[in-house]
Amino acid sequence: MNIAVLGSGAMGCLFGSYLSKRNTVFLIGHNPEKQAFLDKNGIIVRERDGIETGYHPHAVSSCSGLPVADLVIIFVRVMDTLTVLESNKTIIGPNTYVMTLQNGAGHDEKLLKYADSSHAIIGSTKHSSSVVEPGLIFHSGIGKTAIGALDSDSDIGFISDELTACGFPCSVSESIKKQIWDKLFVNTAASSLTGVLQVPLGFIMDDPYANSLMRKLIHEAVEVAHADGFECFDEDQVTASVVEVIENGKKGYTSIYTHVKTGQKSEVDYISGYVLKRGRELGVPVPYHETVVSLIHALENRNAQKIN
Amino acid sequence: MNIAVLGSGAMGCLFGSYLSKRNTVFLIGHNPEKQAFLDKNGIIVRERDGIETGYHPHAVSSCSGLPVADLVIIFVRVMDTLTVLESNKTIIGPNTYVMTLQNGAGHDEKLLKYADSSHAIIGSTKHSSSVVEPGLIFHSGIGKTAIGALDSDSDIGFISDELTACGFPCSVSESIKKQIWDKLFVNTAASSLTGVLQVPLGFIMDDPYANSLMRKLIHEAVEVAHADGFECFDEDQVTASVVEVIENGKKGYTSIYTHVKTGQKSEVDYISGYVLKRGRELGVPVPYHETVVSLIHALENRNAQKIN
Repeated sequence: MNIAVLGSGAMGCLFGSYLSKRNTVFLIGHNPEKQAFLDKNGIIVRERDGIETGYHPHAVSSCSGLPVADLVIIFVRVMDTLTVLESNKTIIGPNTYVMTLQNGAGHDEKLLKYADSSHAIIGSTKHSSSVVEPGLIFHSGIGKTAIGALDSDSDIGFISDELTACGFPCSVSESIKKQIWDKLFVNTAASSLTGVLQVPLGFIMDDPYANSLMRKLIHEAVEVAHADGFECFDEDQVTASVVEVIENGKKGYTSIYTHVKTGQKSEVDYISGYVLKRGRELGVPVPYHETVVSLIHALENRNAQKIN
Repeated sequence: MNIAVLGSGAMGCLFGSYLSKRNTVFLIGHNPEKQAFLDKNGIIVRERDGIETGYHPHAVSSCSGLPVADLVIIFVRVMDTLTVLESNKTIIGPNTYVMTLQNGAGHDEKLLKYADSSHAIIGSTKHSSSVVEPGLIFHSGIGKTAIGALDSDSDIGFISDELTACGFPCSVSESIKKQIWDKLFVNTAASSLTGVLQVPLGFIMDDPYANSLMRKLIHEAVEVAHADGFECFDEDQVTASVVEVIENGKKGYTSIYTHVKTGQKSEVDYISGYVLKRGRELGVPVPYHETVVSLIHALENRNAQKIN
């Protein structure tokens, strides 16, 4: 396949590298110097056992001159998705599949501006990676990847097979939106709260006040999921599985924690902010979500202004 | 009068000093060394024009041997009120008036454990002061003081007159609980929010997200006040007066901000926590208050554990 990966951060580099084993991959980033460096030197992926392997996808800073892609995978920051799709629209043809594995929810509407529902694919992956230095990434997490087309009749088995063949064991899910809700429960319960409080994950399990707020957020998110048509979710089961994830990563920090701490704009609008938005659309009261989302935005603004 | 002031912090020292102009004042604190220092050297009050005046109330660290007081004024931290009343109960007789001008609300129940409703007095004062160094306080704010007995038929005009004569212009209010709500609106809208966000007052006016949460807190507090029997409050008027207070003190910091910042236990339970408690008692939903109060307690715990 002819694959374009939008975004050359840690995840873009990981997917671009692995997929280049069997495909022509264009890794498109916005920084010409960085892209030239990657194009010249390639990308080294350090696995968890310490073994390092080099890959050579084509790294470019513009889609100019590139052919229409068979598959476009989006790995930019969620707030940049629309801008990046717009500036790369010439490689998206009527038969191009446009796929996102970005964190959070609410990305489907954006894909539909550039692909029809049989070619728009959303999904989630348990793979994770981080940048060690330019051209060297650490492949920190592995696990399942699930994808699904917005039109569930669309046959995307060949994409799932290709991901699997390249090292990302993947399945096509008929209930991809349910799986995205599943991941959202963990993220919405943990991300904003650890961001506002500036604490590692374990704190919101151990502190009674934070724990109580975490449960309120889960409750609201489950109510919104029910109203969104996913009546299958049981609040007790959801809570138990969120608790399990947090217990297994007590010393870890969420991305919103890091973004707030370092004065960057966070992805809260695609996590708790998505629950807030859907809650409002569906008429479900979500005051706890509203409070933590507003607090995260206020903290972003405070840090941008260097106030405190 | 024979007056005991419980608590020798900045406010206790201010009231103890001024009242000693015309009364026998015992200033009771818990630190024997500090009390001995104050008793020996007296207290200097620096006014806003820079003029300094010395006062000599009796400073003691125990009520042992003291006569029953005509008036006991409480100026300890709100979380210590009951403990301090209990350890000084021998100076409270059946004719002793027990008065608090402490910040926040919900103090009346505590007074009633040690005085009947005709001798229990609550109030609020616009005077403020801060400790410059041991024995020297800065009298930073002046303004009206209002007091009222819990039994509004009780004649406490002589106490108001004495406060006025000593330099605290005072009036007896028949609607003291209403006035306490008035002050509570400002405090609950500003304190927890500036504490969670760690910002000066002006930020919650200028930042759209913080401003929106401030208004949600006012809305909830007015709903609770209505349910509490104070239907006189109009939300638009309350909001306007809260906004005015904040606009006039934009560069200022709240005490909860400082307590969170310095890792101390805050008085949130007597401010936003009081609105939360009354809301629950009266069946008024107060999720925004619940969130900010829980966040303040979680931040207190985080700081006590030195986590982040």
